[in-house]
Amino acid sequence: MTYCVAVRVNSGLVLLSDTRTNAGIDNFSRFSKMFTWEVPGERAVVMMTSGNLSIAQGVITRINQAIERSAEDPTIETILNVDSLYHAAELVGEAMQGLQDRYRQSIQADGAGADVTMLVAGQRKGGRLRLFMVYAAGNFIEATDDTVYFQIGEHKYGKPILDRVVSSTTSLEDVVKAVCVSMDSTLRSNLSVGMPLDLCVIRRDSYRFDVRQRIEAGDPKFQAISQHWGAALRSAFSGVPDIIPRIAT
Amino acid sequence: MTYCVAVRVNSGLVLLSDTRTNAGIDNFSRFSKMFTWEVPGERAVVMMTSGNLSIAQGVITRINQAIERSAEDPTIETILNVDSLYHAAELVGEAMQGLQDRYRQSIQADGAGADVTMLVAGQRKGGRLRLFMVYAAGNFIEATDDTVYFQIGEHKYGKPILDRVVSSTTSLEDVVKAVCVSMDSTLRSNLSVGMPLDLCVIRRDSYRFDVRQRIEAGDPKFQAISQHWGAALRSAFSGVPDIIPRIAT
Repeated sequence: MTYCVAVRVNSGLVLLSDTRTNAGIDNFSRFSKMFTWEVPGERAVVMMTSGNLSIAQGVITRINQAIERSAEDPTIETILNVDSLYHAAELVGEAMQGLQDRYRQSIQADGAGADVTMLVAGQRKGGRLRLFMVYAAGNFIEATDDTVYFQIGEHKYGKPILDRVVSSTTSLEDVVKAVCVSMDSTLRSNLSVGMPLDLCVIRRDSYRFDVRQRIEAGDPKFQAISQHWGAALRSAFSGVPDIIPRIAT
Repeated sequence: MTYCVAVRVNSGLVLLSDTRTNAGIDNFSRFSKMFTWEVPGERAVVMMTSGNLSIAQGVITRINQAIERSAEDPTIETILNVDSLYHAAELVGEAMQGLQDRYRQSIQADGAGADVTMLVAGQRKGGRLRLFMVYAAGNFIEATDDTVYFQIGEHKYGKPILDRVVSSTTSLEDVVKAVCVSMDSTLRSNLSVGMPLDLCVIRRDSYRFDVRQRIEAGDPKFQAISQHWGAALRSAFSGVPDIIPRIAT
């Protein structure tokens, strides 16, 4: 399984993903689910993937092949030369559709699922910050001020904290904390989501990755968040009013 | 959908359920999912149900019919006269198996799911506090000191808080708060779970329901928990250390 979360607030984009993939419970591996492309000062694009790993890797390969070929032939459209992030999301959707058409029947005949879901986000110079969720069918939706985040994979454990603290005016630093707390709740409650994590931050109108880092299992800052949050939750809980009368014990 | 949670701690049992059932999104109704039986001072038994409503109602009807018939014929085994809660869970499992055998094929031919899962809990005089989760196949597992709670239905949103604050030594009053917070998180994040709620508490060795109440949508104590928890979460969150450096804005 997977947990990836992406947030688009007024001041930028924050994306966080785990790295665990599994087929059954004894066949698990580590694969990055976050992929970034950058032309510093012109555009920064990031994608995160969930679902069938072979399809997801195929999509990333097609995107990279197009970028390589466009060096020779600039008429080839790529996520790095199209005139909008919307168009980039279309290219991702087309690559997904192409791979689904090619493999879906044979994958399903084998008893596995061929679906993938991807998050595509970024900004190009002259454009807006954008965040899209691209479905297996190639269609996609965009985050708005009403719904500032998308999650893919094992999303339920980590949703309540996002619902409570994230809105379009939240600072990027607080969004980073919120996605880390959301991931921490998921890691604690679901074995199929695992460290290390990949984090990236794109500040609005910077057109580059201000943060692009891997958070390893023993990372002291992530551990501090996890421990502080656990203690703060218990302390917050102790202040919650009773619903039934307390009796002497 | 449904959310039911049951906790067995040293000092007693706490159970909380929502009341929403739905088939699709525009066909939803209110049904209690909590059923209680009591011989005050001798035993208290409570069940909560999730899954196919017709099967669940059928199981409850069979249990009640057996109790009625046993007034005439005391050799009929019922959840109120068997010599252990374990045996009561077996009776529930048998009723589930019987109904599944009778309806599963026709329900599935109709495209619906026939599965139900039930939580059975209580204590009889001379016995221990017990909590069982009974599966559709009629088999069941019991809560232990290592795993003090079971959830059925839409369980993921409300799991992190239980993992953080509930253990076998938690007081009943705190367990009630914890299940209310767990339910509140679920209500906020999932439309298929809805107020009002049914709550019951059985104190150890009391063999009766110390609390058996319905919590309506506007209940001031539940609202106080919800509001306090929201505020406390945001306050707890503000104290979480940063993972990326804050920049002047």
